[in-house]
Amino acid sequence: MHKILLIHGPNICLTGRRETGVYGADTFESINEEILSRAKALDLEVEIFWSNHEGAIVDKIHEALNGFEGIVINAGAYTHYSYAIRDAIAAVERPCIEVHFSNVHAREEFRHKSVIAPVCKGVICGFQKYSYFLALQAMKDLLG
Amino acid sequence: MHKILLIHGPNICLTGRRETGVYGADTFESINEEILSRAKALDLEVEIFWSNHEGAIVDKIHEALNGFEGIVINAGAYTHYSYAIRDAIAAVERPCIEVHFSNVHAREEFRHKSVIAPVCKGVICGFQKYSYFLALQAMKDLLG
Amino acid sequence: MHKILLIHGPNICLTGRRETGVYGADTFESINEEILSRAKALDLEVEIFWSNHEGAIVDKIHEALNGFEGIVINAGAYTHYSYAIRDAIAAVERPCIEVHFSNVHAREEFRHKSVIAPVCKGVICGFQKYSYFLALQAMKDLLG
Amino acid sequence: MHKILLIHGPNICLTGRRETGVYGADTFESINEEILSRAKALDLEVEIFWSNHEGAIVDKIHEALNGFEGIVINAGAYTHYSYAIRDAIAAVERPCIEVHFSNVHAREEFRHKSVIAPVCKGVICGFQKYSYFLALQAMKDLLG
Amino acid sequence: MHKILLIHGPNICLTGRRETGVYGADTFESINEEILSRAKALDLEVEIFWSNHEGAIVDKIHEALNGFEGIVINAGAYTHYSYAIRDAIAAVERPCIEVHFSNVHAREEFRHKSVIAPVCKGVICGFQKYSYFLALQAMKDLLG
Amino acid sequence: MHKILLIHGPNICLTGRRETGVYGADTFESINEEILSRAKALDLEVEIFWSNHEGAIVDKIHEALNGFEGIVINAGAYTHYSYAIRDAIAAVERPCIEVHFSNVHAREEFRHKSVIAPVCKGVICGFQKYSYFLALQAMKDLLG
Amino acid sequence: MHKILLIHGPNICLTGRRETGVYGADTFESINEEILSRAKALDLEVEIFWSNHEGAIVDKIHEALNGFEGIVINAGAYTHYSYAIRDAIAAVERPCIEVHFSNVHAREEFRHKSVIAPVCKGVICGFQKYSYFLALQAMKDLLG
Amino acid sequence: MHKILLIHGPNICLTGRRETGVYGADTFESINEEILSRAKALDLEVEIFWSNHEGAIVDKIHEALNGFEGIVINAGAYTHYSYAIRDAIAAVERPCIEVHFSNVHAREEFRHKSVIAPVCKGVICGFQKYSYFLALQAMKDLLG
Amino acid sequence: MHKILLIHGPNICLTGRRETGVYGADTFESINEEILSRAKALDLEVEIFWSNHEGAIVDKIHEALNGFEGIVINAGAYTHYSYAIRDAIAAVERPCIEVHFSNVHAREEFRHKSVIAPVCKGVICGFQKYSYFLALQAMKDLLG
Amino acid sequence: MHKILLIHGPNICLTGRRETGVYGADTFESINEEILSRAKALDLEVEIFWSNHEGAIVDKIHEALNGFEGIVINAGAYTHYSYAIRDAIAAVERPCIEVHFSNVHAREEFRHKSVIAPVCKGVICGFQKYSYFLALQAMKDLLG
Amino acid sequence: MHKILLIHGPNICLTGRRETGVYGADTFESINEEILSRAKALDLEVEIFWSNHEGAIVDKIHEALNGFEGIVINAGAYTHYSYAIRDAIAAVERPCIEVHFSNVHAREEFRHKSVIAPVCKGVICGFQKYSYFLALQAMKDLLG
Amino acid sequence: MHKILLIHGPNICLTGRRETGVYGADTFESINEEILSRAKALDLEVEIFWSNHEGAIVDKIHEALNGFEGIVINAGAYTHYSYAIRDAIAAVERPCIEVHFSNVHAREEFRHKSVIAPVCKGVICGFQKYSYFLALQAMKDLLG
Repeated sequence: MHKILLIHGPNICLTGRRETGVYGADTFESINEEILSRAKALDLEVEIFWSNHEGAIVDKIHEALNGFEGIVINAGAYTHYSYAIRDAIAAVERPCIEVHFSNVHAREEFRHKSVIAPVCKGVICGFQKYSYFLALQAMKDLLG
Repeated sequence: MHKILLIHGPNICLTGRRETGVYGADTFESINEEILSRAKALDLEVEIFWSNHEGAIVDKIHEALNGFEGIVINAGAYTHYSYAIRDAIAAVERPCIEVHFSNVHAREEFRHKSVIAPVCKGVICGFQKYSYFLALQAMKDLLG
Repeated sequence: MHKILLIHGPNICLTGRRETGVYGADTFESINEEILSRAKALDLEVEIFWSNHEGAIVDKIHEALNGFEGIVINAGAYTHYSYAIRDAIAAVERPCIEVHFSNVHAREEFRHKSVIAPVCKGVICGFQKYSYFLALQAMKDLLG
Repeated sequence: MHKILLIHGPNICLTGRRETGVYGADTFESINEEILSRAKALDLEVEIFWSNHEGAIVDKIHEALNGFEGIVINAGAYTHYSYAIRDAIAAVERPCIEVHFSNVHAREEFRHKSVIAPVCKGVICGFQKYSYFLALQAMKDLLG
Repeated sequence: MHKILLIHGPNICLTGRRETGVYGADTFESINEEILSRAKALDLEVEIFWSNHEGAIVDKIHEALNGFEGIVINAGAYTHYSYAIRDAIAAVERPCIEVHFSNVHAREEFRHKSVIAPVCKGVICGFQKYSYFLALQAMKDLLG
Repeated sequence: MHKILLIHGPNICLTGRRETGVYGADTFESINEEILSRAKALDLEVEIFWSNHEGAIVDKIHEALNGFEGIVINAGAYTHYSYAIRDAIAAVERPCIEVHFSNVHAREEFRHKSVIAPVCKGVICGFQKYSYFLALQAMKDLLG
Repeated sequence: MHKILLIHGPNICLTGRRETGVYGADTFESINEEILSRAKALDLEVEIFWSNHEGAIVDKIHEALNGFEGIVINAGAYTHYSYAIRDAIAAVERPCIEVHFSNVHAREEFRHKSVIAPVCKGVICGFQKYSYFLALQAMKDLLG
Repeated sequence: MHKILLIHGPNICLTGRRETGVYGADTFESINEEILSRAKALDLEVEIFWSNHEGAIVDKIHEALNGFEGIVINAGAYTHYSYAIRDAIAAVERPCIEVHFSNVHAREEFRHKSVIAPVCKGVICGFQKYSYFLALQAMKDLLG
Repeated sequence: MHKILLIHGPNICLTGRRETGVYGADTFESINEEILSRAKALDLEVEIFWSNHEGAIVDKIHEALNGFEGIVINAGAYTHYSYAIRDAIAAVERPCIEVHFSNVHAREEFRHKSVIAPVCKGVICGFQKYSYFLALQAMKDLLG
Repeated sequence: MHKILLIHGPNICLTGRRETGVYGADTFESINEEILSRAKALDLEVEIFWSNHEGAIVDKIHEALNGFEGIVINAGAYTHYSYAIRDAIAAVERPCIEVHFSNVHAREEFRHKSVIAPVCKGVICGFQKYSYFLALQAMKDLLG
Repeated sequence: MHKILLIHGPNICLTGRRETGVYGADTFESINEEILSRAKALDLEVEIFWSNHEGAIVDKIHEALNGFEGIVINAGAYTHYSYAIRDAIAAVERPCIEVHFSNVHAREEFRHKSVIAPVCKGVICGFQKYSYFLALQAMKDLLG
Repeated sequence: MHKILLIHGPNICLTGRRETGVYGADTFESINEEILSRAKALDLEVEIFWSNHEGAIVDKIHEALNGFEGIVINAGAYTHYSYAIRDAIAAVERPCIEVHFSNVHAREEFRHKSVIAPVCKGVICGFQKYSYFLALQAMKDLLG
């Protein structure tokens, strides 16, 4: 059973409470439950972590060195400028998948650039909560 | 049963015959077969089209108006400059998913920008042939 | 009686079937009919050509060497990046008028730049089907 | 009978006295006369205004609120930097057509960008005095 | 009693007559009256000047040398390119406050840059007519 | 009585202890006291929060969902790159006013751009501690 | 005896009253007197014109068509953005010399670019009032 | 005897019929004949292909997999934007030489950048038809 | 005995555990020990602090006001975007030396720019752990 | 009698032998003679130096420390990129005047920027050999 | 017999002693010998010059005025910034061919731009020593 | 005993005679003496070379092939544009350390970029003469 670290970055925890036109109407809690149940169905063990703190996300990624085989991350706005998170992902040398609820390419210019994508395995965006589920499936495919 | 148009753009047909480090070792033919069998499992009807011609791809996208409910496209290099394909996707008003074998964000600068992503529903890249399979699953989720 | 080549580029053939707020509600067929009847009234002989293929448009422009005295072109999205069409226009040395249904300057940034305008005689945009009619009138004025 | 405001911006009044290769050999006076007679033929009432002063042009555009139904403007060099004129056009909410004698896209780089085009209905350039006549026709088409 | 020069730049005089969603529904006249009455309450003597002419605004700023102790300016579109107004403000060496009805940072890109702000004391924007009132208060605070 | 959240970002707590030429000589403590007393006079209930941590500021902004009607924020250096704070402000959908002690437009180039201003109601900068007081007044005007 | 038009642009009239470190301590009046006396010594007839109005400067340049053989211009801040003045200079086809009190290349970035220099004969900057005197000498050399 | 694929891109077929100052006066047919006879002299077997269609050029490059040992290409305007052709050249892994009639570096800015040069072996430009002959010689040297 | 604050930024704590080709093979712990022993030899008292949190680093820099005479900082990825850390360094007015294990100029483009260097005394990079030791020596030289 | 160093940079020695349309028809030798005779008339002692070597020019500027009171330099193409010459001029702290035969602002883009102008006293360009003579006069004015 | 000047710029003399993967394994001496023997076969008289000094290269190009009919130059790194060499080539008005061992377009970004190419007849790069031999052939073709 | 080449670039020889605020008050001679004595203490043999000539510096770097094991270089202004020096350093394949007296990142924008740093081992700047001494120590550490 592969152990996966799933990280929600800044403001993700408000999902379902804000801008539902952009991020979908499901609540953060229900999405996390669905993530866990889908993971189980894929025979993946997923630990979910969320924080608005860049440093806390870096700390957590370091923990991936302790037995995790892959990372799924929605780094929220940090996606666009956190070279610290980028370096952390590169450092732990685990396959990482970047996900987003919305299609970032259809939004403001600043969201078109991801500083973490170059050190990730792949990117999935635009499918609301399904982005996470697809990432779990992709991780399953990657890890075999 | 939803009808989906799946389009391979320029040079995709060489997959398995070239740069296997970047695009994977599966042949184009075997990938297409796997696409069709996976689609069937998802209860999707998929028509596969491939061409190196930008104009032919635009022509084909127009055909989506005739009964197709969604488009999956790997526009290859056209991803980065074909505003004609972008306009075609926007014009037919069908949900479209952009896919790539490789993680384009980890390659040359010019591959970091997609001119078609802003008119797509979502983007999936970096999982080799699995990018297509994930897109089929995503399309299934979108169309219900 | 002057012989004019009128070219519709990619996606123009969907006019009246898509995004009518941007391009107007007249169908492609009815516009072409109106173009021909207006041309006749101006004592111009117009051949209408349409294609989604950049190469086919270049081929057609070369034909202008065979008896055509002017070109009216709505190059659609190719307007913004087809240096091949630009070179073709320059090569045949016929007065050329660039037209657009919409006011391209009021739309996305990438539509503000035309790579073919520098080798054209003039540009008319923003008047939906009337852009074509005005171009015919302008061509009439140019050719005397 | 529609009432139209036609504005000539800076240096236009020298037409026919300067750089005739670029702007044509007709004099400013004769062009204005021809504008008026062509307008009459189209059943349009045209008031011609000219000034080298940006502020005076803004003042005049404000007057369009008093009974004018459309504006035709050749803003000359102000086309390329007068956000004040742009704001005036947007504020009076009358259809506005930008015209130029020369094909600005075939000249210096700085002339390729119009700051007023985004708030205009359309643009006509490159046909010397005929640019104005075509604009009158276009205005007629717009106003019905 | 401090003497303050308050300047309205291009198109401001249409406030209440145009784009009320952006600039608010109060009329220019009523706002000026309210400015004067609020100034009196703050024991400030305010002279209000308005013009669409860049040069006239520069002329007026020079007059600040004659007994004015501060300037409040809404330079409208000139904010974004009038280095002449900037130089005038710097030359008269009076504290100057830049104001705007709208939040310019939430509008078009070109409105994000002010060429006069670097020579001003401070900037207040986004509070409709209240921007002026706040500026009067700020001037009061500055002058003691 | 309106409840307002007032946030001081990184390094603000050193005010009065550092670079007094830029930020003024009042201490952080005395400014906070004056904020509270001025708020009371305006019949506003203000909670003051300060942190050097971007994540902590995001956390706090989320709390605005619990009964706060407005936000006043001096995001310090985060103003120029924290898209996480921007997203937080946009998410909680409360009117937000950006303030700065100094006139950021008269300082280094990087301080001229605010990534949070586009999601704020307005901006006030350059009046040292008075920037805060003016923001309270502005908030009062906004909330009525 | 050659007739020369000498134009002072915006804010020049404050010379000697403002920023004397940058522009020198001589008053505008005394400089103009010295210009006239030096011109006489060179057997040049000079008409001095000054205005803060871009449009008035354009108007005046047009007058150069009436008997003037050369133009000396200190366009002040308009130097950096007035394409209208540039077009006027180009239109009247008289040798024009651009002058500045200060060395514009040693000041703010925006002053490094002159939009009028490309249509001038030459440029002289950095010598305070002597810039004008040198320009008169240069004009003398040019006209023979 | 080495087998070489020689490709002429868009508008090349008009050589000798257009802009002879830029491209030379030899006709397309005579140049092709001379290419073939020079190739024979070098003991090279050359297949000449020409098309205005980007897709057709990509198709043809794929054919290089069938027995060709090298490619000589004048991609015309596609040189400057066809990443599809670039990818095709990279995919077939044959030494490729980019040629041009004119010295592209002495023409418009957009011609200074080649998107295919980075995947070519070398570049030869500016020698009219001799560019091709030199490329044949170079290919001979490369293949031994 | 001078008291020095030495700060390790994000991901530095993984040194010796990751990418040893870039950062060297010594462990974080052994480097810190060597720093302390070298400091002692230089008669410097060094406090070592490490954190992945930008805010925590800012907090710590503020502590430099309490008796520290200099700062040595390896801000890791924050080097390239943390204006908050820059402001903190500027605020505490202690000589600061920026260090890096690797030669940042030989790596990705984004690492070529340091936003903190302009407020530092000097920069030392590329010597792995020796960068720190050299910085201690440099601090000794600076403080005398 | 003031001692002035006059420096001709690369390619200047070909004046009169090349591109006489741009640089004038006077020979380098005759211009130097005229410079010396004009200097004498102004009671200036001028040493003329010429070299195509950047380093030799830097060496010579250093010599200005030995009794020279001013420098006149036509740095030719080095004007646009030689920061070494810039630093030399700044280092010797003598008033320096930059001159050019041609109006550099009317030529290629790269000639519009001078890296040495910011450390010069002033700039004179466009008057062919008279640029030098005017510079001598200007130097006389500066030195009194 | 045509007399040709062949110039090797900076670091070329190390060819065969450094980075043989990029520049080939032939020594500088053997290449020069081969150049001379090939030139003789083409009935060309070639003088070979090499220097690391920009100024010396400019000096040498000037010598081309003395009987040389053409120039072949590998300006090494100076290719990318020496406007002095560019001006020298333009000044002597001899056909010049730019050559490079490596394909500069496949290397670092800064090597993609040649400042001398615009004043050359043509460019040949990527064929190691053969680049020179091809240039001799091209020169022969040019001179007839 | 390791043999090290230490190079001073343009204008360095004026140290102590110019801008002492930036470069320190020690004379060039005394610094060189101290370099030699410190080198001896480190058991390093140092040859000091200085020149204002880019070409001479390139020549000297080539000499490093003759027995030198490392290079310390303060390339002065050449740091920012001499790709010739960069190529020389890369070619000789000796560890090279870039040094500067001043903190170049705290000065003009153009000094922030080093074109030689990417081929160096490391960079040390901002410590006046100590930059050299630290570089000697660093070289000692590198060479063991």
